[in-house]
Amino acid sequence: METLSYFDLSLVVKYGVQFGLFGGSILALGTEKHHRQFLAKAGSLALPGCFAMTERAHGSNVRDIETTAHYQHDTQEFVINTPHPQARKDYIGNAALHGQMATVFAQLYLNDESHGVSAFLVPIRDNSGNILPGIAIEDCGHKIGLNGVDNGRISFDQVRIPYENLLDRFAQVTADGDYHSPISSDSKRFFTMLGTLVGGRIGIPRSALSAAKKGLTLAVRYAHKRRQFGVPGESEQLIMDYQSHQKRLMPLLATAYALDFTLKELSKKYIDLGGEHSREIEALAAGIKAYTTWFTTSTLQTCREACGGNGYLSDNYLGRLKADTEIYTTFEGDNTVLMQLVAKSRLADFKQEFHEIKFFGLVKYIAQQATTSLTEMNPIVTRKTAEAHLRDHDFQLAALSYREQHLLKRAAQRLKSRIESGMNSFQAFNECQNHLVTLAHAYIERVIFENFMTVLQQVQQEGLQAKLSKIASLYALNTINQQNGWYQENGYIEASKSKAIRRQVTMLSLEIREDSLDLVNAFGIPDHLMNAPMLAND
Amino acid sequence: METLSYFDLSLVVKYGVQFGLFGGSILALGTEKHHRQFLAKAGSLALPGCFAMTERAHGSNVRDIETTAHYQHDTQEFVINTPHPQARKDYIGNAALHGQMATVFAQLYLNDESHGVSAFLVPIRDNSGNILPGIAIEDCGHKIGLNGVDNGRISFDQVRIPYENLLDRFAQVTADGDYHSPISSDSKRFFTMLGTLVGGRIGIPRSALSAAKKGLTLAVRYAHKRRQFGVPGESEQLIMDYQSHQKRLMPLLATAYALDFTLKELSKKYIDLGGEHSREIEALAAGIKAYTTWFTTSTLQTCREACGGNGYLSDNYLGRLKADTEIYTTFEGDNTVLMQLVAKSRLADFKQEFHEIKFFGLVKYIAQQATTSLTEMNPIVTRKTAEAHLRDHDFQLAALSYREQHLLKRAAQRLKSRIESGMNSFQAFNECQNHLVTLAHAYIERVIFENFMTVLQQVQQEGLQAKLSKIASLYALNTINQQNGWYQENGYIEASKSKAIRRQVTMLSLEIREDSLDLVNAFGIPDHLMNAPMLAND
Repeated sequence: METLSYFDLSLVVKYGVQFGLFGGSILALGTEKHHRQFLAKAGSLALPGCFAMTERAHGSNVRDIETTAHYQHDTQEFVINTPHPQARKDYIGNAALHGQMATVFAQLYLNDESHGVSAFLVPIRDNSGNILPGIAIEDCGHKIGLNGVDNGRISFDQVRIPYENLLDRFAQVTADGDYHSPISSDSKRFFTMLGTLVGGRIGIPRSALSAAKKGLTLAVRYAHKRRQFGVPGESEQLIMDYQSHQKRLMPLLATAYALDFTLKELSKKYIDLGGEHSREIEALAAGIKAYTTWFTTSTLQTCREACGGNGYLSDNYLGRLKADTEIYTTFEGDNTVLMQLVAKSRLADFKQEFHEIKFFGLVKYIAQQATTSLTEMNPIVTRKTAEAHLRDHDFQLAALSYREQHLLKRAAQRLKSRIESGMNSFQAFNECQNHLVTLAHAYIERVIFENFMTVLQQVQQEGLQAKLSKIASLYALNTINQQNGWYQENGYIEASKSKAIRRQVTMLSLEIREDSLDLVNAFGIPDHLMNAPMLAND
Repeated sequence: METLSYFDLSLVVKYGVQFGLFGGSILALGTEKHHRQFLAKAGSLALPGCFAMTERAHGSNVRDIETTAHYQHDTQEFVINTPHPQARKDYIGNAALHGQMATVFAQLYLNDESHGVSAFLVPIRDNSGNILPGIAIEDCGHKIGLNGVDNGRISFDQVRIPYENLLDRFAQVTADGDYHSPISSDSKRFFTMLGTLVGGRIGIPRSALSAAKKGLTLAVRYAHKRRQFGVPGESEQLIMDYQSHQKRLMPLLATAYALDFTLKELSKKYIDLGGEHSREIEALAAGIKAYTTWFTTSTLQTCREACGGNGYLSDNYLGRLKADTEIYTTFEGDNTVLMQLVAKSRLADFKQEFHEIKFFGLVKYIAQQATTSLTEMNPIVTRKTAEAHLRDHDFQLAALSYREQHLLKRAAQRLKSRIESGMNSFQAFNECQNHLVTLAHAYIERVIFENFMTVLQQVQQEGLQAKLSKIASLYALNTINQQNGWYQENGYIEASKSKAIRRQVTMLSLEIREDSLDLVNAFGIPDHLMNAPMLAND
């Protein structure tokens, strides 16, 4: 997905739907009989499929989807049904044209008793591509971007499927209609099921980062070619030499490197799981998906502006990159919703369930833990402005970790006081929502920087290490500088240090500017995918 | 332009090119003979025109354009010529299809002596739309948006025009080829000439604000319809009730109101000038153009995300609005370049010239002035966290003014020390560029808030005044909160006050949420231009 993204993002999404979501759901939610029957076909594209989870009225809140799957004892079938138009499956990739089978999420009913959300394999087209009886499909229409993806809406009118088509890894139904699950709680089973689909949340940010890299490559190369203004009588200045242009682009370039390392680490951890569910990886993937896709959106915006009128011409790629990645902040989980899940996961020691009482206990626990685990603040350190100190990765990591820990402790305290005063947990969480989203960012930023440190330690060549160290410093100090109000509020840095950090961001941007062409060339995007007329010698 | 923008932004740009830029340049740069001959035709669209200033190699740096206009004594003509492909006129609206005449900016030469940039009326097509001899025009190709505008590239191959076609308000050439100008300095004449074209920089932000208002109307109405999650067993919650959603949208809504008042005030001041040049209005227009168009870009981005997958469907308008306004931050002056002009204008007491010596004197002057004019800081005030104090508009205005004054003083000091140490002014300005852009923002924010205060004083109805007062507070406190690091660095607010200001932003966002539907309805966008399927009752 990372490499395909340099070429065409619609292809990436269709690829991701077929192999990641459709194939992935059979692998992760199905059992041996499904693997034997469908995996090879899905993998060879002999069976084009789609992933029908989202409904018109339920995008983020999957647990409350309304499509039903009633078990019919007489025929040993499930009946899949769309009870009303708002329960149609919506935005389903590969649905409008190509999908022949769909992984459909529906509320499972046995003898009118609900057993929560399960997934079913439902044929929607025959081999020739004709829509099957009982299935209605319409195209979602023209979109901002990704118009190479055939997003569609699917309704089911009492569609019968064999009972074996239940993807039954986490809940089995016998031919007699008896229900068995190794996970007794509907809620826990739901989150475990979703947890196995975390792969998509790793693929999306890798694709997003490729788009950002392409944008940065375009903008940095253009800035090494385009001249405007300068000392009277001399040749005009490269726009890359302007301080404001360095400030716009260099911190983004540093962040792209940081994210590259983090995404590789995340992918490795995910692959090492071998399909097992890990709540830590799930939270990490959600947070990194949100962080990276927001980064891509703002980076491509900055790159477009940095290329001026040339950036507005379609031939120069930036418009397409912007339009195609625009939905990345929404699909595979709305970013704001994901960041709240990440924060809750941090608070609840990676538990997915937030029943009031249970959560209350955890909050108390964390409030106690966090208080004692905080690093003491030393007045000599809070005033220290020496360059060697500010570029010391230990200081940078300590600052990022302090912020994360402090926000975690305060979030727990704020929730605890509300819940203790009798507020329901939904309202308590809502009153702390901005805080929780901030906490999730701080967590992800710390993780990203830690991963960068791991990479740095593995680098042997001194010259390379020195350059990467500067990039790491720029990532960390730019992040700290963006939160300089918070750090001062909490006495972690004093005024003089805050100003010194901002100066370091400016200086590092100037220093990294010297390597910036090499740094974008090192992304290795093939030249034939970078034929922007604005970069041609004319 | 404000009202047309609710309908179609390509139409707005073609309208602006024809009447604002083409007609406006004849009015502002021409004299009676041009007005008599061309104004009525331009105004009735009998003579479709364009405005050919930007060149391929010179977008922002207009002074160094390379198109030439040599005077021919024998025929009493000017010869307009494009010396090489990089000097082609580029991105010229109305050029690719409709323009029959262009206001062409070129370097004026008399007997091979350069007299700087002047403007000429050059016929480019005949009445039937055929391109005239010596003129070559090509379409700029597909763009991110505004594809209803026929942007083109124009080259001139020794094109002869009557000498009367020089727009000669600021520089006259007699039939004998004698040159006269009331403004002796080429540079000053150039800036005076550009200054008269300030109207475009007022029209663009009014159009941009309309686009932002439309986006906010869509997002706020959607947030009053869409439900996701909630208390178990109860109906799901409106997304407008989520704290994070209020934080996303309400400060933007407050800013849209603040900008509405400021743009009306700016338009009034501009109209009152009756065509005269004012350096103050010029700087204001440049700054407000940059501030508003950046606001529109980020607002539409937020609105798209706030509408989730529905925001990605083209039928729901947001994609088109985003794509069409994408170039607003670049055209009519790149925003970053404009913000530097604004800052220089503040520093040089609204003078346009920055010859080293002259500027040096002014910097010293301002450095002295600013030191004495600063409000003293009172420790009781820097710690004051009472709601009544934080919502007091006098406090808010004082805070915004303090920031502006302090940044101005420091900018002058930083430039002075560099110039005194022998650095050339170009380099000195470049080393302070981020500071200068920040200063320009602070200036514009103070002006916007002052205009809001003027409006507030004129409102008679008590209920309305109270509601507008909250909107003003949200604009001011959100702006201060975004700079809470800076305010603490400079001892203007202490930690407790910084936190209290953030709490007020959250509280005001909740309070204004109650009126948010009325507030967007009050924009008065016709319903038939708001037929978004996502808002339909289905």
